[in-house]
Amino acid sequence: MINRIFRYELPTIVEFGNGAAKTLPHHVRELGGSKVLIVSDPGVLRAGGVERLTAPLSEEQIPYVIYSDIEPDPNIESVAAATELAKTEGCDLVVGIGGGSSLDTAKAVGLMLVNEGNIRDYVGINKVPRKGAPVIAIPTTAGTGSELTIWSVLSDKKAKVKLSVGSPYNCPSLALCDPELTASLPASLTASTGMDALTHALESYVNKATQPISEGMSVQAMKMIARSLRTAVVQGENLQARHDMLLASLIAAMAFNPTRLGLSHALAIPLGAHFKIPHGIVNAILLPEVMTFNLIGNLEKFKEIAVIFGEKTDHLSLREAADLSVSAIRRLKEDIGITQTLSDYGVTEEALDMIAEEAMQSGNVPVNPVKPTHEDLKQLCRAAMSKTNAITAR
Amino acid sequence: MINRIFRYELPTIVEFGNGAAKTLPHHVRELGGSKVLIVSDPGVLRAGGVERLTAPLSEEQIPYVIYSDIEPDPNIESVAAATELAKTEGCDLVVGIGGGSSLDTAKAVGLMLVNEGNIRDYVGINKVPRKGAPVIAIPTTAGTGSELTIWSVLSDKKAKVKLSVGSPYNCPSLALCDPELTASLPASLTASTGMDALTHALESYVNKATQPISEGMSVQAMKMIARSLRTAVVQGENLQARHDMLLASLIAAMAFNPTRLGLSHALAIPLGAHFKIPHGIVNAILLPEVMTFNLIGNLEKFKEIAVIFGEKTDHLSLREAADLSVSAIRRLKEDIGITQTLSDYGVTEEALDMIAEEAMQSGNVPVNPVKPTHEDLKQLCRAAMSKTNAITAR
Repeated sequence: MINRIFRYELPTIVEFGNGAAKTLPHHVRELGGSKVLIVSDPGVLRAGGVERLTAPLSEEQIPYVIYSDIEPDPNIESVAAATELAKTEGCDLVVGIGGGSSLDTAKAVGLMLVNEGNIRDYVGINKVPRKGAPVIAIPTTAGTGSELTIWSVLSDKKAKVKLSVGSPYNCPSLALCDPELTASLPASLTASTGMDALTHALESYVNKATQPISEGMSVQAMKMIARSLRTAVVQGENLQARHDMLLASLIAAMAFNPTRLGLSHALAIPLGAHFKIPHGIVNAILLPEVMTFNLIGNLEKFKEIAVIFGEKTDHLSLREAADLSVSAIRRLKEDIGITQTLSDYGVTEEALDMIAEEAMQSGNVPVNPVKPTHEDLKQLCRAAMSKTNAITAR
Repeated sequence: MINRIFRYELPTIVEFGNGAAKTLPHHVRELGGSKVLIVSDPGVLRAGGVERLTAPLSEEQIPYVIYSDIEPDPNIESVAAATELAKTEGCDLVVGIGGGSSLDTAKAVGLMLVNEGNIRDYVGINKVPRKGAPVIAIPTTAGTGSELTIWSVLSDKKAKVKLSVGSPYNCPSLALCDPELTASLPASLTASTGMDALTHALESYVNKATQPISEGMSVQAMKMIARSLRTAVVQGENLQARHDMLLASLIAAMAFNPTRLGLSHALAIPLGAHFKIPHGIVNAILLPEVMTFNLIGNLEKFKEIAVIFGEKTDHLSLREAADLSVSAIRRLKEDIGITQTLSDYGVTEEALDMIAEEAMQSGNVPVNPVKPTHEDLKQLCRAAMSKTNAITAR
């Protein structure tokens, strides 16, 4: 561990706090923008999220164009269409507002305003040759961390695959984070996106590529999720809980940006692509099973996770304490209403070879604390297909 | 707390690990440097530190010039002289290697290669108009965090004052951190610089300007110091302990960069300037007294500090648990041989009005968890002048 050189960088500036969205015009000017492309989705548009940006922009006489044709699991065609619109309209700065889909698309558009060809050319890690146009990312969910990650995950609908573009150049210039924008998020989305944030923090914490900077961030994110996710789900209007969750999601992203994740994410990507399972849900379903598989890779850290989530471990052996981390997370996800299994989304035994094969290609596999076989990945999916492991709370 | 907007940014890229110093030529090229000014001090030069850079630079045929006329508490004249040398020699990138003095000077030289006038013109916070020339900071002590802070602290010897320049533009482009360079640091310097790092992490953690990103960093830095400072002092060759301490110092700087510090630093600056007390020592002497004064400002956090430093608090009231943080830190500083008082450096009652008056001007005062009066500051100094509070360990 002390024999490798690691790099840590944070290309994105963070502005965080209630009311931050109102300061958008100031930041557009600071970044040299003269005309803005706003990238969003129909849901955020309907809910008035976009208007919370266009009002102050109009007041400050900053012109803008809106592209809102984004769907969940955004596709690569949206990137090309939005880029074309920005070029035609002469936009020089991109503002993404929404969940991961809108932000991932906005970031890719920023890249494609400067880099040539198609976003497909830059799939992989560090394949982007040049910094893109400035992007301001404004999250309305607390989970993906897309507001400061190096990643855009895009769908190729025909091929039923997800394509990941990862580059420091894909980090937004500014993450403009306003917890008030997340206060109207429904309980179910609060729960699933919150479990995504937790999976980021936890998978980074126990994986083999982490280092103490990321570890400190992971622990902090998990502490905030442990104290505030349940509250944010059942009391959506509780701004302290919303503040904690949005910040936890951001801090988790600061942790995993340089470390990648683990088997939950490796499996979540093909399962999401083939069975249309929302990203946060599939991670929540997989996480306890993956933890069970992984814990012998680092008992101390899994004990630490148990303690962070409120378990009493003083009277237990290290092995027993580590086990409690799994039941604690299982209890959390059940408490917030995530009781589905993979079977509920149509995953069957027949699909598992394909899922395992695709998952095995993920960059999240080599960093996982325990090296899995093809059969291990299938077995993890089987466990996540059945209800027998679940604690039936509430 | 949730009603303000905060900014978090990290303009410096971190490269960290044993052997990192050897990769200097790669990074000089990456940053577009064609000729390097190396800024260092006579001690590092004698110890062969500079040679560890010049050898790989020569091998890669990157030309360089050395300026090593830096003294502890570096003065503003050195900045002007080194800048002049860089200009005459056509250097376009500055490498600082050493403790805080060399790095603070190197950073200021980077600024002055681009900005006009005298470094004195930019004293204060956010007074620098333009980004400077690229600076690579290579620390040889684990304490100041200068390798990524916004601060350069420079001396005006005649006026006996320290001048602080603080700006994101003063952050190095790259912190190149190689624990092997710190392995030969004598025990006494390891102890005093380590206490400086601890004071950064702790004062930021309890102050009023912090937020969860910095809090997570502070906790992580304190944990690493708790487990490794004693070992680094008594087993200088222990690379795991050196790795921990250099990284803890860096992480503490990531915490306090946007938050400022507290009364230890507010008092340390004038005490250092007037009585020539090494910066780490004066902080170590003051810290337990300042903690005693501050703990009613945030009992929970002082309890947390006690726990991080190994105290058992389960059977105690919150107030009693918070108290244990003070004895834990006092024990640590005594264990590593810092048993001096301010009196040992010639501080007398007569000087206290002047010290308190200068300290009260510090930007570290308004963020301190308890608002001090002029008399409070004098009383803190008096407590740090006497041995009566000290536990006599060993």
